[in-house]
Amino acid sequence: MSSELKIVLNPIGYVKTDAIGDEVKNKALISQIILRRELVDGLSGITGYSHLFVLFYLNQITDDQRRTLRVHPRGRVDTPLTGFFAVRTMLRPNPIGLTVVELVGVDGNVLKVKGLDAFDGTPVLDVKPYDQWDVIEDPKVPSWWLKLQEEKRLE
Amino acid sequence: MSSELKIVLNPIGYVKTDAIGDEVKNKALISQIILRRELVDGLSGITGYSHLFVLFYLNQITDDQRRTLRVHPRGRVDTPLTGFFAVRTMLRPNPIGLTVVELVGVDGNVLKVKGLDAFDGTPVLDVKPYDQWDVIEDPKVPSWWLKLQEEKRLE
Repeated sequence: MSSELKIVLNPIGYVKTDAIGDEVKNKALISQIILRRELVDGLSGITGYSHLFVLFYLNQITDDQRRTLRVHPRGRVDTPLTGFFAVRTMLRPNPIGLTVVELVGVDGNVLKVKGLDAFDGTPVLDVKPYDQWDVIEDPKVPSWWLKLQEEKRLE
Repeated sequence: MSSELKIVLNPIGYVKTDAIGDEVKNKALISQIILRRELVDGLSGITGYSHLFVLFYLNQITDDQRRTLRVHPRGRVDTPLTGFFAVRTMLRPNPIGLTVVELVGVDGNVLKVKGLDAFDGTPVLDVKPYDQWDVIEDPKVPSWWLKLQEEKRLE
């Protein structure tokens, strides 16, 4: 039964940033991803892309938090109680974060990226190139999403 | 040292499809994701989105294959030898697949999705909503990528 399968992963590296707390949500933030040195050859050709997906392990989430099934998006009680599958909350059974970042540069085993909302020391699970198949024109999102977005724009 | 950390995950469910072999690459293919029943409340609000990210575990990859650092994209020797970080190959140290799919419908613990290139029985790690922050206008990709894409279009 596949749901009882245990999947064991090792980080490919970790995030390095001076940003603390909510500063990591700043989409202009430049962070580093420090890869394990033996993986450097895996970077060949990566500068051919402008954007990457970064998959990371949300290592600050406790086991109790992983059992949360529904949340108010961004902690706002004026949003509907929403399942974790329908929001990019960190509170999810498998605490994997996924963010699209801009590739700023590569230096040896260090990737410099813009817009990674992960704390200093976060274990990184994978880096994948973003390509044209990942572009969805005008995706549908819930009305609470658009409302919060509009509020942010007006801040 | 975070690279020695062992991260243990359990699948949230698995993929169900009649497609076999390369049939799973057909972007019109409808697959099912059968979730663990106790996670059903996590789906509240998911139909507010048109598209989802599906993260899955590439359970057919052997340990030897996980040590491959560079590949010819799609096995084509006329493409440059490219690092696994620069291609969406299954051959990567942490064999996590990531695909953007269209949400077709939800029925209890079953998600019906279009365009999931995963084999029958594949363990699913996470489902996340795709939102407007995930849309990159005109992302840069390598010239081999565009060439293979153009060939496919002309097939």
